[in-house]
Amino acid sequence: MLPFENIILIDKKSSIAVYKQIANSIINTVRNGVLKPGTKLPGSREMASILNVHRKTVIASYDELEAQGWITVFPRKYVMVAEKLPLLHPKKWDETELAYSYDNDLKINFRIIDKSWCVERDTVEIIIDDGHPDVRLSPIDELLKTYRSFTSRQPAIKSANKGTAQGTVRLREEMVKFLSITRGLTINTDNILITHGAQMSIYLAAQLLLNTQSTIIVGKPNYTVANETFIQTGTQLIEVSVDEYGINTDQIEQLCKKKKITAVYVIPHHHYPTTVTLSVERRMKLLELSNRYSFVIIEDDYDYDYHYASSPYLPLASANHQGNVIYIGSFSKLLDPSLRIGFMAAPKNFIVQCTALRKMIDVGGDGYMQNALAELIKTGELKRHLNKTKKIYHNRRDFLNDLLQSQLSEYISFTVPNGGMAVWITLRKDYSVKQLQNTPLLKIIRTDEESNSFRLGFASMNEQEIEITIDLLHNLLKKQ
Amino acid sequence: MLPFENIILIDKKSSIAVYKQIANSIINTVRNGVLKPGTKLPGSREMASILNVHRKTVIASYDELEAQGWITVFPRKYVMVAEKLPLLHPKKWDETELAYSYDNDLKINFRIIDKSWCVERDTVEIIIDDGHPDVRLSPIDELLKTYRSFTSRQPAIKSANKGTAQGTVRLREEMVKFLSITRGLTINTDNILITHGAQMSIYLAAQLLLNTQSTIIVGKPNYTVANETFIQTGTQLIEVSVDEYGINTDQIEQLCKKKKITAVYVIPHHHYPTTVTLSVERRMKLLELSNRYSFVIIEDDYDYDYHYASSPYLPLASANHQGNVIYIGSFSKLLDPSLRIGFMAAPKNFIVQCTALRKMIDVGGDGYMQNALAELIKTGELKRHLNKTKKIYHNRRDFLNDLLQSQLSEYISFTVPNGGMAVWITLRKDYSVKQLQNTPLLKIIRTDEESNSFRLGFASMNEQEIEITIDLLHNLLKKQ
Repeated sequence: MLPFENIILIDKKSSIAVYKQIANSIINTVRNGVLKPGTKLPGSREMASILNVHRKTVIASYDELEAQGWITVFPRKYVMVAEKLPLLHPKKWDETELAYSYDNDLKINFRIIDKSWCVERDTVEIIIDDGHPDVRLSPIDELLKTYRSFTSRQPAIKSANKGTAQGTVRLREEMVKFLSITRGLTINTDNILITHGAQMSIYLAAQLLLNTQSTIIVGKPNYTVANETFIQTGTQLIEVSVDEYGINTDQIEQLCKKKKITAVYVIPHHHYPTTVTLSVERRMKLLELSNRYSFVIIEDDYDYDYHYASSPYLPLASANHQGNVIYIGSFSKLLDPSLRIGFMAAPKNFIVQCTALRKMIDVGGDGYMQNALAELIKTGELKRHLNKTKKIYHNRRDFLNDLLQSQLSEYISFTVPNGGMAVWITLRKDYSVKQLQNTPLLKIIRTDEESNSFRLGFASMNEQEIEITIDLLHNLLKKQ
Repeated sequence: MLPFENIILIDKKSSIAVYKQIANSIINTVRNGVLKPGTKLPGSREMASILNVHRKTVIASYDELEAQGWITVFPRKYVMVAEKLPLLHPKKWDETELAYSYDNDLKINFRIIDKSWCVERDTVEIIIDDGHPDVRLSPIDELLKTYRSFTSRQPAIKSANKGTAQGTVRLREEMVKFLSITRGLTINTDNILITHGAQMSIYLAAQLLLNTQSTIIVGKPNYTVANETFIQTGTQLIEVSVDEYGINTDQIEQLCKKKKITAVYVIPHHHYPTTVTLSVERRMKLLELSNRYSFVIIEDDYDYDYHYASSPYLPLASANHQGNVIYIGSFSKLLDPSLRIGFMAAPKNFIVQCTALRKMIDVGGDGYMQNALAELIKTGELKRHLNKTKKIYHNRRDFLNDLLQSQLSEYISFTVPNGGMAVWITLRKDYSVKQLQNTPLLKIIRTDEESNSFRLGFASMNEQEIEITIDLLHNLLKKQ
């Protein structure tokens, strides 16, 4: 007989009931090929004595095993491993191998997305983000109060669980008004898809528009994740330069003359990572080119709402474009990076297909959160929040500007951005952004080694925190 | 001079400031090619009189336009449309075309995911879901209280905004314990990816494993969205039959002998849509085949936690499988379909690539919600909820069973499921499930016309609601 006292390990301190531990051990022994179909097991009285547990516990285990079909019980006779189970060639009894199947690699071939994977460092003093909002200012409390109220009433539950693939009707209706008032967009609810942030809109557009036969133009430098997302589709990616007026439209025109362009990805303001605003003449030029050469403009306007020098520039999507502009935005920058709500505005035929793909990806979004956000827009709370934070971020930008001038001017050069939540800082020749990263004290989310630059997000920090950050940078650069 | 009083339309009741309305109108007129670069505009005094607004309003508009680069102001001389703007061939002045660009279709070719798109009916009396939980029983309040507490403290904010692509460390740590206790899984935090529900895990696995050279085996019938997700990758999809013991493993073996199989997708309990439980012998057989023929098992165990006939069957993933099982689960069924949190357990090398792809899709999940869920697991609240609802759903299943027997037995046949949240009901020959759907009174989420069957989710309904639903079905079938 098998040494059950060694095979069936009972941990009385475990939160798993003892009878289940016994059943699970027997199941594992059968699954491992050690206990063969047809093998007799000790009766409940004997097993109880072997394992030093109450007989009722063993009976409960056997009941469980019988209900699932692992064993056959012949009452008052004997208990045996079910005969119909497949006969396995027993493996060497090896507890480690059994327990840690997931320590193995998956050995079947699969697609590799990222070869450079590294574990994130966990302990850093200061993280310089690439332009996060200050979550402490956000009306999250308002949002969650509304959220809670929705989860207890049956009509609100139904509303939240319906049509979340495209976004709840309630949020799309509010979005139509919000985008009209803030961005001059003329759309209806069929033109809107609610996504998990701007990135999902980029992904969906890339998946539907791009393939091995297509070509997309992007700025250099560009939002890296967007580039990776495009490249994964097999598309050809062509970079054109970005200067103080944004992406170079003359270069785009030259390319259009030479080959068929499928799409142009543009971040009109404020360009990521350089923070420049696309000038109005280039905006007009881009629209004209799109019309002439029939390419799609993917307009990633993630940063629209925070422009300090004037009102934000009206998006390309608000102009006459025959339906050629796919407009992308996000609430992550307005409220909280963790609140994954963004949107896409596009012609209905495209939204329909994006919604179908999105259904496959994750069924839909969090309907309560969407409806709570709709309420935040409707009551004007979001607008008040925007007005408040715009002033605060504007002040923080100016505060940072003064500090950079007075403390770091011998190490860096930069242009004060007209808006947004970050400054693009270029180190002078004798200093290295790579070396800046090589300290456990600091983690910078977005650096660019080629241009020796990095993004310094200021919106998420109050004045004291900005001071601490600049002091740290000062100390680190001084030592280089 | 252009008839500005007709071009610049001011709506004093609009929530957009009048000076912005004026600026936006002028921008649109320039973008439309009607106002050409170099054209002089009326001075602020004259324009104010034309538009019947205060002169200061026009000055504010002009300031705005100048800041953005649309016009050039020569103080005390004149104002003109900036000369550097590109010259457009003016379009016919057509307000409709201008305003409704998004009424156009996107005319560039793109991938079509779903050809059968239809608008959802909005007004139905009763929705028969395919197995939703009863949200009214869920501890959403607990969850949101914790959520709120996290959004106000800086360390909690940092924790929630870090590493959300794979899932917060906090939730992954709790998941490791939770999956060990409830499912006998031996994994660590590197083996876990937190997703937006089970569907996202299916999507990620499909994207990485399948392509035009691969073959996947699924049950017939199957969860339709999974099939669609697989087919989109270009893979060959082979269906094998599902009977009362689950997917037919003999047929799988025959197929393995004939050709290279990449993956088998299996819903061990309770199969969607038929609700059958995969028997233990077939589970063992499937593991053995996976080992012998080196295919991946995608184990979609969305419904694990609700098994009434015995404890739930241990997942395939808990057996010895050399890392060949990709295990998929979800909290949508435990708490709320709108709470988009699910997970995948797999070998680390696969999780790493899934995380990389997931970053492209939507950056990551809602870190606060993940940490709040972690807290719910840690405090035992989730387990209490599970125990409570298991009893309630068990009773509802029995209540429904009695009603089906007494009221509908002449119209239907069905097998009481051992667990889960739905009953698979087959109509007798003289009645049609298609016709059942053809009434504005009722919407059934999952029907299968081939087998004349549908899923009747009972968990989301209390006894009174179940009675109303059965009454409605009775009345509709009586009339057929």
